Amino acid sequence: MTDWIMFHDHIHPSETHLHGLSKVLVHHTTAYQTLLIGESPYFGKILIIDGDVQSAQADEYRYHEALVQPALTMHPNPKKVYLAGGGEGATLREILRHPSVTSVLKCDIDAEAIKLYKTWLPEWHQGSFDDPRVRLFHEDARLHLNSQPDGSFDVILTDLTEPFENGPSKALFSKEFFDLCHRKLNHDGILAIQASQLTNQHHTMHGAIRHTLLQSFPIVRSYSAYVGSFDTMWAFILATKQVDPRAYTKEVIDTTIESRGLSSVLRYYDGETHRHLFSQEKDIRCFLNSPSYPVIEDQSVFLLSRKD
Amino acid sequence: MTDWIMFHDHIHPSETHLHGLSKVLVHHTTAYQTLLIGESPYFGKILIIDGDVQSAQADEYRYHEALVQPALTMHPNPKKVYLAGGGEGATLREILRHPSVTSVLKCDIDAEAIKLYKTWLPEWHQGSFDDPRVRLFHEDARLHLNSQPDGSFDVILTDLTEPFENGPSKALFSKEFFDLCHRKLNHDGILAIQASQLTNQHHTMHGAIRHTLLQSFPIVRSYSAYVGSFDTMWAFILATKQVDPRAYTKEVIDTTIESRGLSSVLRYYDGETHRHLFSQEKDIRCFLNSPSYPVIEDQSVFLLSRKD
Amino acid sequence: MTDWIMFHDHIHPSETHLHGLSKVLVHHTTAYQTLLIGESPYFGKILIIDGDVQSAQADEYRYHEALVQPALTMHPNPKKVYLAGGGEGATLREILRHPSVTSVLKCDIDAEAIKLYKTWLPEWHQGSFDDPRVRLFHEDARLHLNSQPDGSFDVILTDLTEPFENGPSKALFSKEFFDLCHRKLNHDGILAIQASQLTNQHHTMHGAIRHTLLQSFPIVRSYSAYVGSFDTMWAFILATKQVDPRAYTKEVIDTTIESRGLSSVLRYYDGETHRHLFSQEKDIRCFLNSPSYPVIEDQSVFLLSRKD
Amino acid sequence: MTDWIMFHDHIHPSETHLHGLSKVLVHHTTAYQTLLIGESPYFGKILIIDGDVQSAQADEYRYHEALVQPALTMHPNPKKVYLAGGGEGATLREILRHPSVTSVLKCDIDAEAIKLYKTWLPEWHQGSFDDPRVRLFHEDARLHLNSQPDGSFDVILTDLTEPFENGPSKALFSKEFFDLCHRKLNHDGILAIQASQLTNQHHTMHGAIRHTLLQSFPIVRSYSAYVGSFDTMWAFILATKQVDPRAYTKEVIDTTIESRGLSSVLRYYDGETHRHLFSQEKDIRCFLNSPSYPVIEDQSVFLLSRKD
Repeated sequence: MTDWIMFHDHIHPSETHLHGLSKVLVHHTTAYQTLLIGESPYFGKILIIDGDVQSAQADEYRYHEALVQPALTMHPNPKKVYLAGGGEGATLREILRHPSVTSVLKCDIDAEAIKLYKTWLPEWHQGSFDDPRVRLFHEDARLHLNSQPDGSFDVILTDLTEPFENGPSKALFSKEFFDLCHRKLNHDGILAIQASQLTNQHHTMHGAIRHTLLQSFPIVRSYSAYVGSFDTMWAFILATKQVDPRAYTKEVIDTTIESRGLSSVLRYYDGETHRHLFSQEKDIRCFLNSPSYPVIEDQSVFLLSRKD
Repeated sequence: MTDWIMFHDHIHPSETHLHGLSKVLVHHTTAYQTLLIGESPYFGKILIIDGDVQSAQADEYRYHEALVQPALTMHPNPKKVYLAGGGEGATLREILRHPSVTSVLKCDIDAEAIKLYKTWLPEWHQGSFDDPRVRLFHEDARLHLNSQPDGSFDVILTDLTEPFENGPSKALFSKEFFDLCHRKLNHDGILAIQASQLTNQHHTMHGAIRHTLLQSFPIVRSYSAYVGSFDTMWAFILATKQVDPRAYTKEVIDTTIESRGLSSVLRYYDGETHRHLFSQEKDIRCFLNSPSYPVIEDQSVFLLSRKD
Repeated sequence: MTDWIMFHDHIHPSETHLHGLSKVLVHHTTAYQTLLIGESPYFGKILIIDGDVQSAQADEYRYHEALVQPALTMHPNPKKVYLAGGGEGATLREILRHPSVTSVLKCDIDAEAIKLYKTWLPEWHQGSFDDPRVRLFHEDARLHLNSQPDGSFDVILTDLTEPFENGPSKALFSKEFFDLCHRKLNHDGILAIQASQLTNQHHTMHGAIRHTLLQSFPIVRSYSAYVGSFDTMWAFILATKQVDPRAYTKEVIDTTIESRGLSSVLRYYDGETHRHLFSQEKDIRCFLNSPSYPVIEDQSVFLLSRKD
Repeated sequence: MTDWIMFHDHIHPSETHLHGLSKVLVHHTTAYQTLLIGESPYFGKILIIDGDVQSAQADEYRYHEALVQPALTMHPNPKKVYLAGGGEGATLREILRHPSVTSVLKCDIDAEAIKLYKTWLPEWHQGSFDDPRVRLFHEDARLHLNSQPDGSFDVILTDLTEPFENGPSKALFSKEFFDLCHRKLNHDGILAIQASQLTNQHHTMHGAIRHTLLQSFPIVRSYSAYVGSFDTMWAFILATKQVDPRAYTKEVIDTTIESRGLSSVLRYYDGETHRHLFSQEKDIRCFLNSPSYPVIEDQSVFLLSRKD
C-alpha cells in the first residue's frame, strides 16, 4: 500500500520515471515555485520543485559534496564564500565543514521556501542556517552580488534550478552573471556551479552553460556524478582564473582533506574520487569539445526547452 | 501519438520507469525467455528480455565497449577468446575488432533467440556471426567450456542475464564456474564479465558476484559505466591471474589502441576512459570493500531477488 | 504542469487508472485509515481512503442520491433514520432534504476523520453536521445500533468502505448485522446500502453482499449507477420487509418528489431514473440470479480479496 | 510478469488508464490507421486503433448487441441492411442473427485492416465475412451509399471511429451524410450509430452528433451502455422516420426476440434491457436537451478535440 501516490518525473515525451511517495509532507506554492516534500520508500525524504527532483535523502550527499568539495578543497585557504541559491541548506553545510571559512553570504530569493526547508528538511541543513558565519539575503542575486566589493570572494557557488526559458534562474546562467562572478572573485578564486545533466543523449543545456562560462573564464572544467534520485549523471563546472583541477593529484587532495580534519566526515569526495571526476569518458569529451552550443545572454531568447 | 505503448521497467516496488515504444517489432517467447524488440523514440531500437532492458541502440556502444575493450586492450596479444552468452552479437563485434584475434568460441543456449537477433538486430551484430573466426555453440556453457583444453584461452567473457534465483544464468556466476574459467585461461588470461548494477543504493548483487570471484582469482577489479537505457551505473568485473588494470596508464592504453588501428573506431573507450573507470568514488569503494556479501555456489540457494 | 502528482488506482494486477492531482490538501493516517484529499483537474476535489477513491466533487451527487433517494422517496413518511458510516456528510445531506425526517442517528467510528472532513469537504456536508435533527456517535455501529429499541427506524443506511477480509467494515456486511437491521426497522422500513461494483466482469463481492441480505430480508433489489471517478458501475441494494422498488411507477416517484419540494433540488434521481435503475440489463440479471455466491458471516473467514 | 507492456489510454491531460498486455499479436500501420491487437489478462484479446480501445473480448458483446439489436429487433421485417465501417465483423455477426435479413452491404475503406481482422479476430466475426448474404466494399462510404437506390434499406448502421477533426470518420457524422442515410432508408427504416461516450462529464461530442442528426430525422433517441474496456458509458443513437423506441414495451421486445429464435443467443439485449436503455437518468437527460451543441457539417471546421 505504498504505491498509490506517485511523482511522475517527465524526462522526455516518451520517457517518464515514477517515484512512489508513502507520505506527502508539504505541497505548497510560494511566490516563485511549487514545492513538494514527500517520503519515498526508496530514496527517503525527497524535495521536488516545479516537477523536478531537487534532492533526496539517500544521495543528496553525492550531489552536494560534488558541487562544493572540489572547489573548497582545491582552494588553499578559503575564507570568504558567496552562495547563490542552495535553499535547503545542504550546500551551506558542506561549505561550513572547512575550518578556514569565516564568512558565507547566501542569497536566495524565496524566503518562504527557506522557512519551510528549516522546518521540514533538518537532514539537509543540519542547523547551518544558525551558524554565526552565515548571513542570509532574500533578493535578486545579481543585484546583491554586484553590491559586494570586487575581488572579495575566494569561492562563489551557485546551486540553482536549471536555466529554462522563462524560468527564474536563467539570468544567473548568463554571460553577464558569469562576468560578474569573475569580477567578484579574487585572484585564486574558484566558481563552482551545478550545470544540468551530462550524458551521451543529454548534453545541450550543459554545453550551453559551459560554452557561456568559456566567454568569462580561462579555465573551465566539467565533471559529473551519478545521482540515483535524478536517474542520470549530474554535471557541475569549476571555472577559475588560474588553477586547474586536472593538475591536482590524488595525494594532494587526500593530504588537504586530512589536514582539515575531513577524512572521516566526507562520504563521497576524496583524492581518488577527484581523479575519477576529472577523467572524462571519450564520448562525453567529444560532446564537450563541440563548438556548436549557444551562449546564454541575459537578454537573449534562450531556446532550450525543459528537456534539452 | 507515440506514447500509448509503454514498457514498464519495474525497478523497485515504488519505482518504475516508463519507456514509450513507437513500434513493437518482435514479441516472442522461446524455450528460455520472452523477447521484446521495439522502437523507442528516445533510445532507438531496444531489446528487452523477461521485462529487463538488455540494450538499446543509443547507448549499447557504452555497455559493449566497457565489457570488452579493457580486457582485450590490456592483453598484449589476444588470440583465442571464449564468450558465454552475448546473444545479439555486439560483444562479438567488439572482440573481432582486435586484429590479433584468431578464434572466438561463442556459446549461447537459446538458438531461437539468436535467429531472431540475426534478423532484427543488424545494428548490434553488424555481420559478426558470419566472421570466419567465429564458431557458435548452443548448449550449456559450463559443459561446453569444460570440454575445452585447460589453459587454452587468452580472454573469457560472459555476457549473461543477471543471476536471479531460479534464473537460467545463476550457475554461470557461481564459484564452480569461475574456478572453471580460471583453469581454462592461460597465464596472462583475463576474465571479463557484466556484473549487475553498482550504485550507492544498489550493490548487493554486484557485491556477491565480486566476492565469489575473489574466491577464484587473485586480482578482481570492479568498474562501472552509466548506461542511460538502464537508468543506472552498470558494473563489470575484470578478474586476472596477474595483471592489474589499475597499473595501466592512460598513455599505455592509448598507444595500444593506436597500434591496433582502433583509435577512430572506438567511441567510448580510450586511455582517459580507462583511468576514469578504474578510479572509484569513495562511497562505492567503501561498499566494495565490505566483507559481508555472500558467495554464489552452484548448488546453493542464492537468496537475491530480482531487485537486489 | 498538473500531471506530476498522480494517484494510482490499482484495479487489477494488469489494470491501473492514473488520476492527476494539482494539489494535495490532506495526507493523514488516523487510527483507522489513511486519508488523501486532493484537487483533480478533471474531477475537482477528491477523497481517497486507503488507496480507493471514495468520492469526487464532479459526481458525488450521483453516488449519494443513488444511495439515499430511492429509499427515502419510496418510504411514505420517513421520520427516524439510522446511518452507519458516511463520514464526510453527503449521505446526511441527502437524508436531511426530506422534510418529514425528525431524527438521524449517525454512527462512524473515526472521529478524527470526521473532523478533517468538516474542515476540508464543505461541498459534501454543506453544514449537515450542525443540523439539530442529527446526533453523531463514534463507536462500533453494531453495538450502537443494537442498543436502540427494536422497530424504531423507518430507514437504515450504511455507507461504508467495502468488506475486504481484515478490513474494518466486514462485520457490517455480515448476516448478523443484516439481521440486526431487520430487527431495528419498523414494518415499512427500508435498508439501503452501498454494495461494491457491479459489472459483467466484477460482481463477486456484490453477489456475496446480496446473497447475504437474502438470508435476512424477503425483498432485496440491486441497482447500479455509473460513477466516473470510480470508472465503473457502482451498486447499491434496497432490502425491505414488504415494499418493492420495481412496483413504483415513474409517475408515483415524480409525484412524491414534487410533494416534498425536491424537484429542483435533486440532480440525479427522479421517476425516469428510478425506472432506469430498477430495470437491469440481461447479463447483469443473469449474474445476480446465480446461487453460487457465499454468505458473509461475522466470524467466518471471508475470502474475497481487494479486487473481487 | 504480465505487467511490463502497458497500453496507456490517455483520457484527459490528467487522466490515463493503463491496460497490461501479456502478448502483442499485431502492431501494424495501414494506409489509414495504426492497429494494435494484443492479449490482456483482464479483458482477453483487445483491439486498439490509433491509441483508442475499439473492443475487447470480455465485453464486445455488450457494445455490438447495443449497437445492432434495438434497431433490428424494432424493425418488423428487416431484409436489406447497409453497414458503414464495423471492420472486425462483430456488427455483421449481430445483423446476420436475424433470419429475415437477405442482404448486407458492408463498406469499409481499409481492406488491409479487414484482412488482419479475418486472421486475428475470429472471436469477433465468427465467419460472418463468408456468409452468402454479405457483400464487402472497400471505398468511401459516402460515394458508395449514394450510388444505391433511394428508399432501398430497412436498416443502416454506422460503426466508425469517432469524428475527430482531421480524422477519417468526420464526414460520416455530418449533416450531409445523415441526409443521405435518410434518403436511402425506406419508410419504416432505422438508422443506428455508435455515438461517442455519454457521461455527466463527457457529452460534448455525443451532443454534437445528436444535434446534427436532429437536423435530418424527426425521431432521435440516445442510449448508452457501460463498456468496461472503455471504462465509460458508451452511447448510441437510433434515428427514425416514424418509430420510437420508447414506445416499445418490454413484452413486445421479448416476443419479437422469441419469435426470431434469439432468446438464448443474445447475452445483453432483451425487453428489460430495452426499458433500461431507453429510460435516461435525470442529469443525462438534462445535458441531451441542451440546445447548445454544434451541428457537424461536411465542410465545416469541427472543433472538437480528441478528448471532448
